[in-house]
Order: sequence, then C-alpha cells, then structure tokens
Amino acid sequence: MAKLKWGMIGGGEGSQIGPAHRLGSGLDGLFEFTAGALDHRPDAGRAYGQQLGLAADRAYGDWQEMLAGEKNRDDRIDLVTVATPNSTHFEITKRFLESGFHVLCEKPLTITVEEAEEIVTIAKNANRICAVNYGYSGYSLVRHMRAMVARGDLGKIRLVKAEFAHGHHADAADADNPRVRWRYDPAQAGVSAQFADCGIHALHMASFVLNQEVTRLSADTVSCIESRELEDDAMVNFRMDGGAVGRLWTSSIAIGRQHGLTLQVFGEKGGLRWAQEQPNQLYWMPLGERLQTIERGEAGLSPEADRSSRVTIGHAEGMPLAFANIYSDLSEAIHARKDNRPMDPAANLYPRAEDGLRSMAAIAAVAKSGKADGAWVDARPPMFR
Amino acid sequence: MAKLKWGMIGGGEGSQIGPAHRLGSGLDGLFEFTAGALDHRPDAGRAYGQQLGLAADRAYGDWQEMLAGEKNRDDRIDLVTVATPNSTHFEITKRFLESGFHVLCEKPLTITVEEAEEIVTIAKNANRICAVNYGYSGYSLVRHMRAMVARGDLGKIRLVKAEFAHGHHADAADADNPRVRWRYDPAQAGVSAQFADCGIHALHMASFVLNQEVTRLSADTVSCIESRELEDDAMVNFRMDGGAVGRLWTSSIAIGRQHGLTLQVFGEKGGLRWAQEQPNQLYWMPLGERLQTIERGEAGLSPEADRSSRVTIGHAEGMPLAFANIYSDLSEAIHARKDNRPMDPAANLYPRAEDGLRSMAAIAAVAKSGKADGAWVDARPPMFR
Amino acid sequence: MAKLKWGMIGGGEGSQIGPAHRLGSGLDGLFEFTAGALDHRPDAGRAYGQQLGLAADRAYGDWQEMLAGEKNRDDRIDLVTVATPNSTHFEITKRFLESGFHVLCEKPLTITVEEAEEIVTIAKNANRICAVNYGYSGYSLVRHMRAMVARGDLGKIRLVKAEFAHGHHADAADADNPRVRWRYDPAQAGVSAQFADCGIHALHMASFVLNQEVTRLSADTVSCIESRELEDDAMVNFRMDGGAVGRLWTSSIAIGRQHGLTLQVFGEKGGLRWAQEQPNQLYWMPLGERLQTIERGEAGLSPEADRSSRVTIGHAEGMPLAFANIYSDLSEAIHARKDNRPMDPAANLYPRAEDGLRSMAAIAAVAKSGKADGAWVDARPPMFR
Amino acid sequence: MAKLKWGMIGGGEGSQIGPAHRLGSGLDGLFEFTAGALDHRPDAGRAYGQQLGLAADRAYGDWQEMLAGEKNRDDRIDLVTVATPNSTHFEITKRFLESGFHVLCEKPLTITVEEAEEIVTIAKNANRICAVNYGYSGYSLVRHMRAMVARGDLGKIRLVKAEFAHGHHADAADADNPRVRWRYDPAQAGVSAQFADCGIHALHMASFVLNQEVTRLSADTVSCIESRELEDDAMVNFRMDGGAVGRLWTSSIAIGRQHGLTLQVFGEKGGLRWAQEQPNQLYWMPLGERLQTIERGEAGLSPEADRSSRVTIGHAEGMPLAFANIYSDLSEAIHARKDNRPMDPAANLYPRAEDGLRSMAAIAAVAKSGKADGAWVDARPPMFR
Ligand SMILES: NC(=O)c1ccc[n+]([C@@H]2O[C@H](COP(=O)([O-])OP(=O)(O)OC[C@H]3O[C@@H](n4cnc5c(N)ncnc54)[C@H](O)[C@@H]3O)[C@@H](O)[C@H]2O)c1
Ligand SMILES: NC(=O)c1ccc[n+]([C@@H]2O[C@H](COP(=O)([O-])OP(=O)(O)OC[C@H]3O[C@@H](n4cnc5c(N)ncnc54)[C@H](O)[C@@H]3O)[C@@H](O)[C@H]2O)c1
Ligand SMILES: NC(=O)c1ccc[n+]([C@@H]2O[C@H](COP(=O)([O-])OP(=O)(O)OC[C@H]3O[C@@H](n4cnc5c(N)ncnc54)[C@H](O)[C@@H]3O)[C@@H](O)[C@H]2O)c1
Ligand SMILES: NC(=O)c1ccc[n+]([C@@H]2O[C@H](COP(=O)([O-])OP(=O)(O)OC[C@H]3O[C@@H](n4cnc5c(N)ncnc54)[C@H](O)[C@@H]3O)[C@@H](O)[C@H]2O)c1
Repeated sequence: MAKLKWGMIGGGEGSQIGPAHRLGSGLDGLFEFTAGALDHRPDAGRAYGQQLGLAADRAYGDWQEMLAGEKNRDDRIDLVTVATPNSTHFEITKRFLESGFHVLCEKPLTITVEEAEEIVTIAKNANRICAVNYGYSGYSLVRHMRAMVARGDLGKIRLVKAEFAHGHHADAADADNPRVRWRYDPAQAGVSAQFADCGIHALHMASFVLNQEVTRLSADTVSCIESRELEDDAMVNFRMDGGAVGRLWTSSIAIGRQHGLTLQVFGEKGGLRWAQEQPNQLYWMPLGERLQTIERGEAGLSPEADRSSRVTIGHAEGMPLAFANIYSDLSEAIHARKDNRPMDPAANLYPRAEDGLRSMAAIAAVAKSGKADGAWVDARPPMFR
Repeated sequence: MAKLKWGMIGGGEGSQIGPAHRLGSGLDGLFEFTAGALDHRPDAGRAYGQQLGLAADRAYGDWQEMLAGEKNRDDRIDLVTVATPNSTHFEITKRFLESGFHVLCEKPLTITVEEAEEIVTIAKNANRICAVNYGYSGYSLVRHMRAMVARGDLGKIRLVKAEFAHGHHADAADADNPRVRWRYDPAQAGVSAQFADCGIHALHMASFVLNQEVTRLSADTVSCIESRELEDDAMVNFRMDGGAVGRLWTSSIAIGRQHGLTLQVFGEKGGLRWAQEQPNQLYWMPLGERLQTIERGEAGLSPEADRSSRVTIGHAEGMPLAFANIYSDLSEAIHARKDNRPMDPAANLYPRAEDGLRSMAAIAAVAKSGKADGAWVDARPPMFR
Repeated sequence: MAKLKWGMIGGGEGSQIGPAHRLGSGLDGLFEFTAGALDHRPDAGRAYGQQLGLAADRAYGDWQEMLAGEKNRDDRIDLVTVATPNSTHFEITKRFLESGFHVLCEKPLTITVEEAEEIVTIAKNANRICAVNYGYSGYSLVRHMRAMVARGDLGKIRLVKAEFAHGHHADAADADNPRVRWRYDPAQAGVSAQFADCGIHALHMASFVLNQEVTRLSADTVSCIESRELEDDAMVNFRMDGGAVGRLWTSSIAIGRQHGLTLQVFGEKGGLRWAQEQPNQLYWMPLGERLQTIERGEAGLSPEADRSSRVTIGHAEGMPLAFANIYSDLSEAIHARKDNRPMDPAANLYPRAEDGLRSMAAIAAVAKSGKADGAWVDARPPMFR
Repeated sequence: MAKLKWGMIGGGEGSQIGPAHRLGSGLDGLFEFTAGALDHRPDAGRAYGQQLGLAADRAYGDWQEMLAGEKNRDDRIDLVTVATPNSTHFEITKRFLESGFHVLCEKPLTITVEEAEEIVTIAKNANRICAVNYGYSGYSLVRHMRAMVARGDLGKIRLVKAEFAHGHHADAADADNPRVRWRYDPAQAGVSAQFADCGIHALHMASFVLNQEVTRLSADTVSCIESRELEDDAMVNFRMDGGAVGRLWTSSIAIGRQHGLTLQVFGEKGGLRWAQEQPNQLYWMPLGERLQTIERGEAGLSPEADRSSRVTIGHAEGMPLAFANIYSDLSEAIHARKDNRPMDPAANLYPRAEDGLRSMAAIAAVAKSGKADGAWVDARPPMFR
C-alpha cells in the first residue's frame, strides 16, 4: 500500500499540537509528510518545513500559497491537517475542501455554529472527507466500548456519566498569567472556556460510544476564580436522541486530578467504566455478575478494538497511538475512495465535520443555559433539528 | 468511666439496622444494653430482648410501655436509639425527648420538614441531645477532612463533589420485587427515593466536611426504570452558605459500582479525595505539589482523626467502627453533661437534629426542583431562612 | 445462646494488644469479660480490671492467683486469653490447659520448638482447645480463598506467593531506639526478628489457605541496617506437603509500604490475589477468562465467608472484625462441646496449637538456613516428621 | 538534524518484533528506513522490503548480501538492527561490527557467555556502538528512578525487589502447543526458559536503575507444569557490587497477572515503586513522609525523564515510546560521534553489549544454581571478574 501524501497548516516550531500530528500521521508509515505552511511567519514556516524534510517548493510561506501550489499538481497531497489557531479554521478548511482536498481540522471546527453548518454542507457537496480531531476517540478500548454498546452487550443505554476535570488552572495567581488568562476572556476564547476546551471532548466521547446525539441540555457554569469571566467549572445534564440521560462534569480547578477524562456507561444489562489516564483497562460488569477487567489487546475483542491496538496485552499503549488511529482511519478512508471499494467498517470511526458542528451547537447551548440559571435549551445545530 | 445505659426501639430479630447499632454501641464498652422495645409485635420484642440479655422488666412490649417504665426509674437509660420504620420516628423521638431522654434517631429524622422543625425545637427546649444517624460521618478520615478544612489547609473551599451511586436496583425485573418496589412508590416512600435514601448521606457529608450548609439547589431527577414513579438517579447542583459550589450525583442503576459514596473537595490551596469503599486512605494534593496518600492512623493527624481511630496504621478499619464513633461521641457528650464539664471538642461531631431537619428540607427541595425542570429552589428549612 | 465467660492474662493498661482482644471478644456479644490478671504489677492489674468492669474478686493480681481462683468456681471462665510477653506464654498456657481451661494464646505460642510440642501434647491429652492468635486468618475473604482452594476452584495448587513487607523499621536512627532495638537483638528476641514477627503471619496464611503444611525451606536473611544482629529482611522459598511451591518475602525496611501482607495463589485452573490493606476485595482469574473482583459480602460466597462477614457489600470491614471472627469460632467450638454436638464446620477455622508449633519449627528452620547460606532444611516439628 | 539511515535484519512479514522496531525507529523521525534483509527466504525478504518502501537495490535477500552491498556505499546505513532468531545474533552482529557498523541487537545478545565476551571485545576494538534491546529501560519514569538513585535521593540502596511474573503459559494444555513448547525445551531454548526470556528484563532494570552490577546469586527454579524440562517459575536472590541486596521473582504460571514487570527500590532515605502496566506513575516515599505519586511529564523531573517524555502530563505514554527512546538515544550517540562532540548525558542510557554479556552470565548462573539446590554462584562474566 503506497504511502499517502500529507500536508499541514500550522504546527510550526514550538507549537503545542504540531509534533503530535507529525507523530500520529507518521507512526504507522501510512502518510508521507509532503507539504506544509507551518507558521504565521512565512520565512519561519518555509525554513522549518525544509528542516523537517519538505522539498523546497512544497515548504510554503502561507496557506494561500500552499493551496495554489498543491491544487494543480498531479501528485498533490491526499490530506491536509489544519492546526492553526481557532479563528482561522473555518476559512482554511472551507477553501481546501472546495478545492477538492480531504481535511483533518483541529477542534474546534469553527467559531460559530453557522460556520460549522457551512463546512458540513461544503464537505458534503464536494464529497470530501472533513474530519475533526477528537483524538481521545482513537483509544482502542474507547472503540471497544462503542462496539459493545452497538452489539447490545449493555442492552438499552440508560445513562452516561462523563468527566473531564483537572486542576491545572487552580492557582489564583494564574489570573495574571497570560498563558492562562486569555482562556477565560470571552474576547479571546468565545462563549465558553473549560467546557469548550475540555468538556467537549467528554461530550464527544459520550456521543461516540453511545452512537447517540445530544438533543437538549441544562448547564450550571461557575467561575471558581472570581476574576474569570468565563467558567472554570461546569456541570451539564443532557438528553440524547436514543433515550439516554447524560451527566457531564468538567473543571480546571479540581486540584489532585491530573487529566480526569473518564466515561461510565450504564445500560439495562451492564455497566462500563474507563479512564484516559489508565487507558489499557476497561471495567465491565454484566448485570448480576462480577466486575471484570477487560485488557487492551486481549483475545476476542471487537474488530474495532483490534484494528486500533498495536502491542501485545500487558504492555501499555498511550495517547500518541490513539492519535495515530485517527490517521489510520483516514488513510483507510482515502484509499477506499481511491480504490472505489467500501472501507473497512472497523476504521470508519474518525470524527466528522458533523461532530464538529454538533460540538459548536453544544458549546453555544451550555453558554446559553449557564446564563439562564440552567434552563433546558435545545443543543442541536439548526440544520439537524 | 462507668458504662452508660442504653435502650433501643425497633431493631428486632431479623431487622437490617438493629445489629449494627448493638455492634456500634457495644464495641468500645461505653454503653450497656439495658432496655428495649424491639419489635412491632410485643411478644416477639420481649422475647428477643431477653434473649439479648435484657432484664425481663426492661424488655418491653412497645415503646409506650418502655417510656412509662423508664421515665420513673432512678437508673433509667441514658440514651435511646430509635430504629423503627420512618413514619414512627417523629412521635417516638418527640415523646422521649419531652420526657428528658437523649435520643439517637435513625435517618430520616421525620417524614416532613414541619415535624423535623418541631423536633429541633423540642430538643432545644428540653435541653436534650437529639442525634441523627449519619453514620458515614464517623469515619476517621472523614473527620480528618473536616479538620483540614477547618484549620485552613485547603484555603477557601471552591467546590465540593459528592457521589453516592451504586447499581443495586438496576435490574428491571426488580420492578416487581416487593423489597425494592416500595422504595420507588411515593405512597410508601414519600417525595424522593434514591436521593432521600442515599444521596442525603453524601449531602450530609459535604456539609459536615465543609462545615457549611446548603442554601439552594437545582435537581435533575430521572427514573431510568420507567415503571418507577420516584427517581432512581439524580444530579443535584447546590450552593452553600460559606460560598462553596456543590455537585452531587446519586444513582441506584450504576451497574459496576458497589457502594459509590465518594467525596472530593477543592479549595484555593489544595484538593482532597476520599471513597467509602477504601476508607483508610485519603488523597491530598497541596496546590503545586504532588498527590499524597494520607493513611488512617498515621502520626500527626488531627485530634478528631486520632480519637476515631482504633487500630494501627496499615490495618483496615471499616464501617462498624465508624458507627461506633457516633456512639463514642454521644457517650462523651452525655458524660460531659453529667459531669458538668465541656466535652472533648474532638468528639463534638455527631450529627444533630438540625442536620436531620436540613436533610428533610433538602429532600423536599430536590423533589420540587426535579418536578420543575431543575429550577433553583431554596433548600433551607423555613426556621433557618 | 448464653454469653461465655472470658478471662484475660496480660493486656493491661497501655498494652498494645489488650484492647484488640477486648474489642474482638466483645464485639458480637458472645463473651462476657469476667476475670483477668492484666498487669505484671498486681495492684495495677487489679485496679484496671475493676475499672474495666470486673468484679473485685475476679480482678486478680497475677495469673497464679487467677488460676487458683477460677479453677474451683462453678461459674469459672470458659476461655482464657494469654496476651503477656512471649517468654511467659508457655508456662501460663500449660498450666491453664492442665487445669481444664480452653486457651487462646498470643503468638508466638512458645519460645522453643520443644515447648510448643509439649503444649500440643498437653492440649490433646487434656482435650482442651488451645488456639493461637493468627488474627489475619479471620478475614472473610481469606477464609473464602481457603474454601475456593478446598472445593477445587483452582485445581491443584502450583505456587503460593506471600509477602509481609513494610517500612516501619527503615530508619537507621532507630538503631538506638529502645522500642525497636530489642527486636533485632537475639538475647531478647530469639533466633529471628522480622520473619518471626511478621513473616510468620504470611506463612501461616499460606498454610491456612492451601490447607497444606510446610515441609522444607531455604532462607536468605539479611540485616539491611548493619548494626542489627537479626534479620530485617528475608526471602524464604519453601515446599509444602501437598506439592505446592512457596515463596515468601518479609521486610521491615521497605519504605513506602504500610503493612504489606499479601497473598497470591496460583493453581492449574486459576489464580487469586488478596491484600490485607484492602481486605474487602479478592481478585480472581479463572484460567483463560478475565480478572474478576470478588467483593466481601456478595451473594453466593462460601459458608466460611458468609459466617465471618457482618455488614452489607460495599461497606468496608476491617481488622477488628477479623479478630472477632477468631473469637466467634472459639465461641462456637466451646458451645458445641458443651452441647455435645458437632461444631459448625464454617467456624472450625481458628488457628491451633499445632499451627503455633509449626510456626516455631519454621522460625528455627529459617534461622538455620539463613546462617547456612540458604541450605534447604527440614521445616517440620520433630513430632510431625 | 538530518535523518540517520537505518537498516534491519529479520523482522520480516508477520514477525513479532519487526513492526515494533520500525515503529520505534520511525516515531521521532530520526531514522530513515533505508536497507534490509528481512526474511530467511530471500525473495520474501526482498519483496517485503520494497513493499515497506526500500529501494530495490537495498532490499536485500540475506544479510551477507546486505553487508556486501552496504559496506562500500558512501551513503551506507548508520545503524543496523538485528532482529533474527537468537542463534544468528552472534555471527550477524560480529560481522557488521567488524565492518564498521553500529548495531542494535535484539536480546539475547548471543547464545553463550563466550560469544558475548567476544562481541564486547570486537565492539570495543572497532569503536562501534553495540546496543542490546532492553526496551523497558526506555520508559521515562524508569530513567527517572535511575536519576533519583544517582543523585542520592534514596541514600545508599539497601534492597531492590524486581518481578516479571505473568500467567500466559499457565495452561497445562499448552504442553503440546508448539508455540509454547519449544520455550521449555533445552534443545531449543538453552539452559533457561522463563528467567532467560522475562526475568532477565527485570534483572537488567534493577541494574540499570541502581547503576550496580550483579555479583553472585542463588536461584530456586521450578517447573510447575511437570512435562517441562526448563523452569516456568524462578526466585533469584542476588548481591550487587554497590552493596545492594536483590530479590527477583519471575513466572509464567501466575494466572491473573497480565505482564507483571515491577520494580521496588529501598534505600536509606526513601523507597520507590513502579509497574510496567501503569508506567506513567511512580510511587515515592521519602523516609518519614507520605507516599507521593510522581507523574510522567510533571515539571521538575530529571533531564533523563524529560528527554524521554513526549506528551503532556496526564496523558498516557506506552511501550512503543519506550522503544523509541532507545532509538533516540542511539541517534544522539551516532550524531555526537559524527559531530565529534560529547553526547547529551541524558541520552547516554541505551543498554550496551556489556549488559547483554552480563545477562548471558546471569542466565548461566541461574541455571547452575537452580540445578545445585540454590547454591550461591558467581554471576559475573569471566572477563569482568
Ligand atoms: N485535539 C486536541 O486535543 C488539541 C490539543 C491542543 C490544541 N488543539 C488545537 O490545535 C490548534 C493549534 O493549537 P496549538 O496549541 O498547537 O497552538 P500554538 O499557538 O502552539 O501553535 C499554532 C501554530 O500555528 C501557526 N500559525 C498560526 N497562524 C497560522 C497561519 N495563518 N498559517 C500557518 N500557520 C499559522 C503558528 O505559527 C504556530 O506554529 C488549536 O485549534 C487548538 O484548539 C487541539
Ligand atoms: N443510617 C443508615 O445508614 C441506615 C441504614 C439502614 C436503615 N436505616 C434506617 O433505620 C430504620 C430501620 O430500618 P431497617 O432497615 O432496620 O428496618 P427493618 O424493617 O429491617 O426493621 C425494623 C424493625 O423495627 C421493628 N418495629 C417496627 N415498628 C416498631 C414499633 N412501633 N415499635 C418497636 N419496634 C418496631 C420491626 O419489628 C423491626 O424489627 C429506618 O428508618 C431506616 O431508614 C438507616
Ligand atoms: N497477633 C498479633 O498480630 C500480635 C500483635 C501484637 C502483639 N502480639 C503478641 O501479644 C503479646 C503481648 O504483646 P503487647 O504488644 O501487647 O505487649 P505490651 O508490652 O504492650 O503489653 C504486655 C502486657 O502484659 C502485662 N504483663 C506482663 N507480664 C505479665 C504477667 N506475668 N502477668 C500478667 N500480665 C503481664 C503487662 O503489664 C502489659 O500490660 C506478645 O506475645 C506479642 O507477640 C500479637
Ligand atoms: N526485547 C524484547 O522485548 C523482545 C520481544 C520479542 C522478541 N525479541 C527478540 O527478537 C528476536 C526476533 O524475535 P521474533 O519474535 O520477532 O521472531 P519471529 O520468528 O516472529 O521473526 C523472526 C524474523 O526473522 C526472519 N529471519 C530469520 N532468519 C533470518 C536470517 N538469517 N536473515 C534474515 N531474516 C531472518 C524471519 O523470516 C522472521 O521474519 C529474537 O531474538 C527475540 O528474542 C525481543
């Protein structure tokens, strides 16, 4: 299987998420890093691109140049990752989709619900893949939870409990720290801070595992550090279109918790518990039986779990491999299109523009409900109502 | 120190909670079981009382007979425990208080908020102890959390997260099981099921540890098993009079969780985490430092923790000893009154009628908010507004 | 069932183990504390006995006086616990057995193997119970492990791995601490320190759970703190009469471990893992299946587990209740003899003089092998060879 | 920094360890896969090599061809990994070293101690790197343990306790399974099975973390499944040249344990505990303080830990990244030689031919002691005595 050609916008030297994408896309040898516009400073971007091994003519100065350059090549890139600051996602993603590229956009997909709806429409019309990087959904046992729910092991799902609560913004002294401060400033961060940044991963995971969408929600948002305008802690109750009740807690002031992304799913016939910090074990209790430990890599798991697992049982796998699973899905999706064949269903799991859109709507709904004393509000994007 | 004389109403042969009270009161040799009206069937109660070692004239047939018999004795009982079904708590407790007895009443203190207010007033006027059995507050490390908060280790408390979520009523087949069914029937159980039964322990613990009272709350109550009229799962957001934000989840359909009472407390200067199922460890992270394991019985804990700890570090202590700590507090309280001396402040921790009253108000508030789509309601008893 | 009369020798005011025995014997209301010679200072012993509620004529000044006093009473004590310093166990136990009393002796049963053999013979000839207090064997789930092994759940046992390793004597400064120093001094502690004090509990537990006896062993004993003559760390490999291989590690310099008593059992058909610090969970993996969590108090456990469990599933039970289970066994054993009926087999689990004897032989063997560079030595008492 | 050129011998299609090396070498973009002789069937090896992207002239049919081909190229490979079956390691490694290549050889380095000594000498004389793949030593927190020991946080080390005990060969039915059987057959596996395969990783880790070498040892080796000639369980006591006492348990019949590689280190001033299955946490107790959780990725760790950590705190890293750290070390070592500069000391941690040699000597010693009833034997290679 020939390597696909991969390009990147953003993710320049010193960026936070850039190395993770290069690691994730390269890890399985499925993609070749071929083109990039890596930095908001054209020269720095070109230099760093070449340093990373790009050919000089494909280490572009900005994304417009890259779009122009790649569009007309026969050997143009198969996939572009957009890892620039949030406010630029919409335009870049839109323009590349329109020119016929598959896109993996960093979260959040856009700034507004309207923009996200537009992206969904464009991707559909252009018949291009537009994925959104909810990387935690790449973990093997997260995918196995989804498979267990889908095949009915838990019966009808009653309730899902999601958390993403950590303590990394708990220091009141950080009110003046510019690296933290902007996150709680609506002028820079939009309508939501902790929910939009972390909570949304937990909400996506709940949707992903249950294969149900959020319909309405009620939020209690608070700023534990008073100088903050946006929330640093939120509790969100929600309902899903398959009948599940949802509860989600997110916090950045929960001192003693390092990361805190966890999921619990309770159905008629059993319950599941998983935590991102120990991602290689999944706790499962069938109704009336004992709690069991499911190990990543054990024999007899679902095809979805097997496909996203690399090392033998008992050896830890971590976040970079979850990330790589998103890229592996995309590789399979792109190859299947090229070969005009159906894709492996066990790879058809990458988060989509529609998920990015639903997230935008959920964020808006949390902000609205939070301001309205927890009133229940519709959490669906208008186009899906 | 002479043993105190102890009496019991309810807790007859085969009752659920009776043995725990006899274990807890007897464990430290502080109380002598002296009188009882143990059963709703007078003969059975008398026989079982004598079988347990009561003198024939103090193994009473009913509580009225017991009240009459004990009231005029010189060697009358020092404390009476009321462990009968809920609907009788009010009258029995009231009558014994009025006759000058100290009372430990099982939870819930009464059926209505009004009755609970009346009990508080009676106990105050009669200058008698009226305790309520929130037994989990007796754990050594729960008391240590309270001490840590009180002495400022955590700084101002921002948020408390409490859970009491288990899966023991998750089987839909139990809809027809009479031992489970009545709990979800408003005619028999009142306005709330899971919150009143379990959630209230978690709420009391949050109050106890923070030494703050709930002022208002918003509840999302659901019946995951549809035939149930009352809730089997609830999420309650609340605010406290010292400024803390609270979040409480309670469930009886959370398959895979055995008991699930946990408390997390987050302040300006650190965070705490404790779980009832592993009660001998407390996890503590001071802001900017590492997570530490505090062990029950370690050197240098608070006087409150030391007083309620019996065996050396590394050896597990469990629920019966927590229960015994409530009795130990009461013993000290009664002796201090007898001796006309101040009581040991490290023992002044038993839950009070006021706590029982606040619980009644919180239960009413949860039911009201739950029916009103999570509207925020006042959670305080009228007499404390 | 009438309470049995219980007496105690040693366990005076401020003693370490005295309160635990009073707690354990009293907890279930099976024994009445009736007589005692509690202190090596006659007056202190008499005063403290009366303070604890003994009648003046049964609060004795020394054990000789107690033996004389009790021997000829009609209402003489049913059981006497010997909780004096080690060197006195032999004579006291012997004399009470010979006078027809049942005895629970603290560990170690004696100082020498010969003495222990004599006790076994005396108890047998006198047809009296002579129990030894290996209290950890009282835990409900330890007893359940024994039941699982006995009924064949694990198939033939291949290997048992026991540990009792903590860090409480790791401070080199304790070389001068009199409370620690004597333990490592052969003149005061005999031939072994850490193995005799802690390791022996783990060895007893291995024997108890497997229902097999140690035949021979090889020991590597070291003094990590150099000034110590006796070992503070030992590794013992052993073989058992039912074919099991054993491995036991004990240490007092293992900083970071609080108590460290654990047992792992591996058979043809499954494996078990249990730890004293979290005694309410037992981990069980049937061959080829998943790891399961067995909870103390769950439905369907063995009669042995059920009988030694008091509170409902999900609530922790701890060491004092394990201790009480030994007393509960003894109560049943004594009542069965009185009533001339077979005892409940689920109570027939208290450690016996024979176990105390085997311990003495194992300690001697460890010391011998340790001095002989780990040569394999016979670990059986001469009378059982 | 230009990519280094990397070649591989063995690791053909379907091999167990081949993909892990390609993952590990490629993950950080430090090496370019440039040449290979991947299969014992020349055609299959050539085809698979080209499929993986090798140029046709560098996808060799066997290692002799590869050696001839690469030796005289200007752009010859910088490093070759030997991942063929054990019996071929010696010759291939020797020949590539002699021709001036750096080599990473899979464990075991050779079959005999003599061969391993020869490799050490050749590598030294040729001034080439000869590394051995003890991949577990690549974990960030394992390297941090080494750093803590080196800088004296624990004071003098008293004792190290290592385990590598799992249950994957516990099924007696596997006696006939050819994939398991050969491992316990001396004709195919040599003098040791479980110790040579797994135990040796634990022994290397003990040496690595303490920076001490094993001097002598005593082993108790057993075959729990009787048809096996070689051991499936072993307990090894050892002594180290820096004065530490060591204890190591390895097993393949420990049902319920998935992997079971753990290390505990006890010094004068503190104790450490780490487990491969949860590699992102390290438990540390300074003498007289509380147990602390050290998190991979936390601020203020050692340079060694920082260099081998890729994702932010709270996100799991796993085995493939540990593997990649070995390659990262080698990249730095090779670049430093090329640039004629000292290498980053935080990267100077890859296992060496000397370690491979010491392992061979230890395996021989375990086999010898195991046959001699646990007699203590010299565990050092003759050339290091
Ligand atoms: N999925 C996740 O878990 C996750 C985690 C972290 C960040 N993110 C997302 O990734 C995106 C990037 O975040 P980051 O933390 O790496 O930011 P960063 O500030 O660390 O890096 C941004 C990079 O983009 C470059 N850049 C900026 N504008 C550009 C432009 N117009 N053209 C080309 N390059 C440009 C910058 O020079 C820089 O190199 C954000 O949208 C963020 O929300 C997602
Ligand atoms: N604090 C806790 O954790 C906890 C736990 C369980 C029960 N409880 C409370 O304890 C109380 C008793 O519950 P239970 O589960 O033991 O009930 P139960 O039905 O098992 O036993 C009730 C006992 O009271 C006796 N009784 C009934 N009416 C009586 C009367 N008028 N006079 C004397 N005896 C009478 C019955 O004969 C029976 O022996 C309830 O209020 C319950 O809410 C509290
Ligand atoms: N099973 C266990 O887990 C465990 C734990 C701790 C102690 N022990 C054993 O319990 C025994 C007592 O240990 P301790 O730590 O309580 O000792 P301690 O020194 O704390 O107390 C000993 C008590 O015995 C009294 N005493 C001494 N000689 C006496 C005599 N001749 N007659 C009457 N009383 C006498 C002393 O006055 C004191 O009150 C020891 O044999 C010890 O090995 C067992
Ligand atoms: N470090 C570790 O944790 C670890 C783990 C597993 C294996 N290993 C070691 O890795 C080595 C390989 O083990 P494996 O499990 O991958 O074996 P394997 O049998 O799965 O694969 C061996 C591969 O080598 C090829 N091969 C055999 N002889 C060859 C030759 N002369 N020239 C070229 N290729 C040849 C085979 O065709 C095959 O592709 C062994 O030495 C083993 O001990 C180490």
